[in-house]
Amino acid sequence: MRVRVVGAGLLGASLGLALTSEGHDVSLDDTSPLALSLAAGLGAGTRATATEGEEIDLVVVATPPDVTADVVCAELDRCPGAVITDVASVKSHVIDTVLASGQPGLERFVGAHPMAGKERSGAPNADGDLFRGRPFVVVPTEHSSRTATERVTNLAVEVGAMPIIMSAAEHDDAVAAVSHLPQVVSSLLAARLQDVPEGALDLSGQGLRDTTRIAKSDPMLWATILAANAPRVRAHLAPLQRSLQAAISYLDTCATSHYPPAAVAGLAALIEAGSAGVARIPGKHGGAQRAYAEIVVYVPDRPGELARLFADVGEAGVNIEDVRLEHAAAAAVGLATISVDPAAGDRLTDYLSEREWSVVQR
Amino acid sequence: MRVRVVGAGLLGASLGLALTSEGHDVSLDDTSPLALSLAAGLGAGTRATATEGEEIDLVVVATPPDVTADVVCAELDRCPGAVITDVASVKSHVIDTVLASGQPGLERFVGAHPMAGKERSGAPNADGDLFRGRPFVVVPTEHSSRTATERVTNLAVEVGAMPIIMSAAEHDDAVAAVSHLPQVVSSLLAARLQDVPEGALDLSGQGLRDTTRIAKSDPMLWATILAANAPRVRAHLAPLQRSLQAAISYLDTCATSHYPPAAVAGLAALIEAGSAGVARIPGKHGGAQRAYAEIVVYVPDRPGELARLFADVGEAGVNIEDVRLEHAAAAAVGLATISVDPAAGDRLTDYLSEREWSVVQR
Repeated sequence: MRVRVVGAGLLGASLGLALTSEGHDVSLDDTSPLALSLAAGLGAGTRATATEGEEIDLVVVATPPDVTADVVCAELDRCPGAVITDVASVKSHVIDTVLASGQPGLERFVGAHPMAGKERSGAPNADGDLFRGRPFVVVPTEHSSRTATERVTNLAVEVGAMPIIMSAAEHDDAVAAVSHLPQVVSSLLAARLQDVPEGALDLSGQGLRDTTRIAKSDPMLWATILAANAPRVRAHLAPLQRSLQAAISYLDTCATSHYPPAAVAGLAALIEAGSAGVARIPGKHGGAQRAYAEIVVYVPDRPGELARLFADVGEAGVNIEDVRLEHAAAAAVGLATISVDPAAGDRLTDYLSEREWSVVQR
Repeated sequence: MRVRVVGAGLLGASLGLALTSEGHDVSLDDTSPLALSLAAGLGAGTRATATEGEEIDLVVVATPPDVTADVVCAELDRCPGAVITDVASVKSHVIDTVLASGQPGLERFVGAHPMAGKERSGAPNADGDLFRGRPFVVVPTEHSSRTATERVTNLAVEVGAMPIIMSAAEHDDAVAAVSHLPQVVSSLLAARLQDVPEGALDLSGQGLRDTTRIAKSDPMLWATILAANAPRVRAHLAPLQRSLQAAISYLDTCATSHYPPAAVAGLAALIEAGSAGVARIPGKHGGAQRAYAEIVVYVPDRPGELARLFADVGEAGVNIEDVRLEHAAAAAVGLATISVDPAAGDRLTDYLSEREWSVVQR
């Protein structure tokens, strides 16, 4: 397959690396000569030539989202035999603009959204494994041909991702809930920390770190994403605002009286609703959330201690399903919480205790 | 030291275990005979006797927070030679009530808040290492004697925690910001997931999991904590509500026009403020956030693979500073992000590559 990638940032260069390693012929284009030479230097593909349009089978548009629709239209002209796809993380906005152009060849356009991590950006962070095992949403339009949809689905498979076909509306509703809403909430929460005295932050625990991790994000990229999906994100913020108002009212009542039952019950109902919501998130591998035995191990912060722990777990012949490290504030120790099959919990606890690890099973 | 622990839940039983293992003489009391026998059976102490009051050096009140103040007052009477402390997670509420009683012996009362994880509760989850390396806030009142404050500070040290002396107001302001506010926000966010279609949740990634992890919490315990610290939590929710309203206004503007510059800039400023806030959270061991080299390794989900990886890291002689596992939705693979000293990053990347790990350094 001859693939042309337009935009040599994190996603474009990573796609180039993945496709090159699968034996495809990848050419790269970018308005920035520097980004282009970085991506080419990493082995993500060769530089595009002025005359390559006729030979291309698939074009992937991986530009910033505000120019995606225009670039898709230009590529439909430039590469008359190619299927065109794009990787913008909001689909309706791009697809509506492309279809409104009314230009010939719209049957060759299929949208896509490879859901890969974006904490880092740019070609230097490119990674051919970026898409492996991740959802890769394929979004055909009302004009897309079956061949075009199949070619984009194959792209997902070639880079190791899991193709999921959705309409633009379904996709944009889904990411508003599971990606854009948490980003806004985490950013607003983290912004509050700007006014907190330094001494107070010394009491920060894992809960604060987890809830604010994604707040460390690229402001312009996220502003563009939120703007493109504005009505759907807003639809989630309205009920959030109502429940926040309810919390404030309950707290106001609590401030005037000693544990007023109705207000305490109201606060408990808000926490309970959160527990019910979090229980709906699918567990590992998309299956239902599964109960694991949790083994908590006290790990001195010395070179090699964590490696020694995992080596011991390996020797015990137990598969680690998950691991979480928690650092104690202001002390040279950490707690490792290891999740394992419940049937193996007792055995691993005994095994580690015998090797003098300080360990407790939860 | 003869220590009496009133309330044999997670905190009381864990304190009993930690103090017993340090050679102290611990007696346990609880209104629930079942909780008492569970905690005693774990080795957290012996059952309290009716006549022990005279002999006790230190009483730790570890009851539910709504009865803490009453129990502290009763213990001041019962144990005339003892220092009394409590572990309620909001201090002003308890201390104001105790001082208002005006009873004799108030110089023997000092508040405390051992900041240990509370995702699980009850004596069965007790753990003598629960406090190790954690902040243990000691809160003297205006009446507390120096001896009493020293005895509670020593308690913190005996259980392996890091004593931090604060006033009740300082403490309650701090936990409102770093603990209570994130709990409310995470719960309100997770509650929104109740209305999301199941297919949408298939696109859930690590960001959603992290931001909602603490939403899985005990509703009555948290309602009581929030009610006790109501004015201070409310003081954070008011500006949060204003910034949420600003986000909604920007999104409304974006819905009516194509990337309106002022609204996009407003959204970018909200994300930027979040980045600035999160940058203030102290890093590992209470120090400034430190840059580590991050090595991302693709780990097949087979028994022993993660253990094999950590064994290889151990053989490379590199100390792991942090580790994060990310599971791909709907696929049998995971990504391990290992943070190491920047000076060791290249060496570890090469070492793991030679052992045929699929690895990229960020």
